[in-house]
Amino acid sequence: VVPNEFDEILSKNGAQGLNAVTTNESTIYYVELPANRAELWFVLEADRMTSPVFREFYAERDVVMEERLTRVDTNPGGLLYEAHLAAAFQAHPYGVPLVGWPSDVRNHTRQEVENYYRRYYGPRNAVVAIVGDVEPDQIEGWARRYFSPIPPGETPPPVLIEEPEQRGERRVEVHFDAEPAVRIGWHTVNKFHPDAPALAILSALLSGGRTSRLYRRLVLEDRLATYVGSSLGPGARYPALFAVEAYPRSPHTTAELEKAVYAEVARIADDPPAYIELQRVRNQFEASSVRRLDTNFGLALQLANSASLFGDWRTTFGLEERMAAVTAEDVQRVVRTYLRKENRTVATLVKTPPPARASPQ
Amino acid sequence: VVPNEFDEILSKNGAQGLNAVTTNESTIYYVELPANRAELWFVLEADRMTSPVFREFYAERDVVMEERLTRVDTNPGGLLYEAHLAAAFQAHPYGVPLVGWPSDVRNHTRQEVENYYRRYYGPRNAVVAIVGDVEPDQIEGWARRYFSPIPPGETPPPVLIEEPEQRGERRVEVHFDAEPAVRIGWHTVNKFHPDAPALAILSALLSGGRTSRLYRRLVLEDRLATYVGSSLGPGARYPALFAVEAYPRSPHTTAELEKAVYAEVARIADDPPAYIELQRVRNQFEASSVRRLDTNFGLALQLANSASLFGDWRTTFGLEERMAAVTAEDVQRVVRTYLRKENRTVATLVKTPPPARASPQ
Repeated sequence: VVPNEFDEILSKNGAQGLNAVTTNESTIYYVELPANRAELWFVLEADRMTSPVFREFYAERDVVMEERLTRVDTNPGGLLYEAHLAAAFQAHPYGVPLVGWPSDVRNHTRQEVENYYRRYYGPRNAVVAIVGDVEPDQIEGWARRYFSPIPPGETPPPVLIEEPEQRGERRVEVHFDAEPAVRIGWHTVNKFHPDAPALAILSALLSGGRTSRLYRRLVLEDRLATYVGSSLGPGARYPALFAVEAYPRSPHTTAELEKAVYAEVARIADDPPAYIELQRVRNQFEASSVRRLDTNFGLALQLANSASLFGDWRTTFGLEERMAAVTAEDVQRVVRTYLRKENRTVATLVKTPPPARASPQ
Repeated sequence: VVPNEFDEILSKNGAQGLNAVTTNESTIYYVELPANRAELWFVLEADRMTSPVFREFYAERDVVMEERLTRVDTNPGGLLYEAHLAAAFQAHPYGVPLVGWPSDVRNHTRQEVENYYRRYYGPRNAVVAIVGDVEPDQIEGWARRYFSPIPPGETPPPVLIEEPEQRGERRVEVHFDAEPAVRIGWHTVNKFHPDAPALAILSALLSGGRTSRLYRRLVLEDRLATYVGSSLGPGARYPALFAVEAYPRSPHTTAELEKAVYAEVARIADDPPAYIELQRVRNQFEASSVRRLDTNFGLALQLANSASLFGDWRTTFGLEERMAAVTAEDVQRVVRTYLRKENRTVATLVKTPPPARASPQ
């Protein structure tokens, strides 16, 4: 067994930033190579797709178990996130941690993983985005030559489980010997839904930068929190959570943070954001999407995401227009529609000293 | 299509109490027939096992959807139970409702159900208990004759998912226009575990009959509740919940009930049950197990359950001895081990008037 042979061949050929990441919707492999090594990439990737050998399966499984242990099971932020999603999603697989529950990781066999890979990781389900100083015709030729002989794989079954409507507040505590924290989540929509842009604008209004409402009030003015952020997740294809996360500044409590968050949410529902505030947020989005396209890597990622999620590489390039069309009334409407008490799940990290041990005499 | 042909043939032959029930561990079909119709039962059951035809699949699926609607989605007790289990079991399938989530029922196809039936509902996985005025040798002969030609089916895969240890209290509310109720559950053990008998004794001490601790205090003395009960569930094979359910007597609240339940639980942890109290409970168990064996049906069910769950029809007949061996200290130990705040999930039904509708002018 030659360990890391794949990585080493790439590195010898000038590869940088070789990495892999798994999201709720896809596994993404990325690498930067000199333009004149593009064919090598096709050779290696086609070989990995055709004849994967899970040589070091059990060693790698141990690595994943160790990762779970350090990033989740002994990590307060990881535990809080996992507990929050599991409480918010009772039916939909968004409630299952990406890496699996500890018993899942422990019980996987090499054969299961290999079968899964052969079933789904074929060219039918692959989206490749190549950005750089290359010839499109040549790239297409290589794609046909190297990928067309490979069995296409099966289309993964769609997730048909729908999360039933939430009918009342849910609260979960996680005891851990770490500083307190709180995550508040409301069920919303998927990324294709007409309300998605207004929710993205809302997130920026609440916590995008130092002038955002929650940051200003909780961190700067009232000094209740050391951090506040908001996000939509964990995935994009199915209805996701609008989540606010905050860490109290001692001696303030997560209960105080919750109260302040709900007050700011109610304020938006009652009193629409001013034109200038909205415009500032829209400008932020525009600036960040321009920045993202400044690198080949950022552009490749956006192309691949757009194609795999929306079935069209152009779609996400139209998102700015959808953002620009969001009105103050749209923002108020999504607040009133989704950010209701009965629709929220609150996960709190409660600082708990570890159980006292008998000290050796 | 002849509807209900199976039922009709049985009924014409004197069948009574024909029914089917699905638990977390098995599907149970039961029927009482005149002793001289035993062979008919083999003929019909073997035919159902060999050549099931899901003729009225879509009509039956509609029936199940309607059942889900009336028993869960528009039923406060059903909703509360489902929400409670889903909150308590984040990883283990005990958190998934037996009948499935609404989208599960809606999306099943005839082909899927037929494949599932053919895969698992064969003789390999069937346990048959026949009680009555029959000849064992003849029964065995029929069993061999009618069931041995049938493909055995596959052994179902064991559930390898383990519920991670709960690390803090979880609370879920269900808003519904109905009287309030509360369910409190603590993670415990499966039915094979050495602590299971002490938990069964605890359940009887707390709520078995009018002299039980919770009934006496909540219903009779303080008149806080109209009902209080406790149980272990939802299944037997995997670690289950010890659950207490109670309905407040107006104007008392579920919060008052919770407080009283926790006080009684703490009282047992601090102060062991007296010998006479324990003996009364053990006697109750003995009496009810004798009563259960008074009918052919009760005996058949116990034989089949024992064989399917423990792999031996004798096992559950030894349970009384295990109950008799439970000491006051065992009861205290299980209370202290499992009935801790960080290990509990509380689901509350909150009475909420339906949204006001604009009245027609």
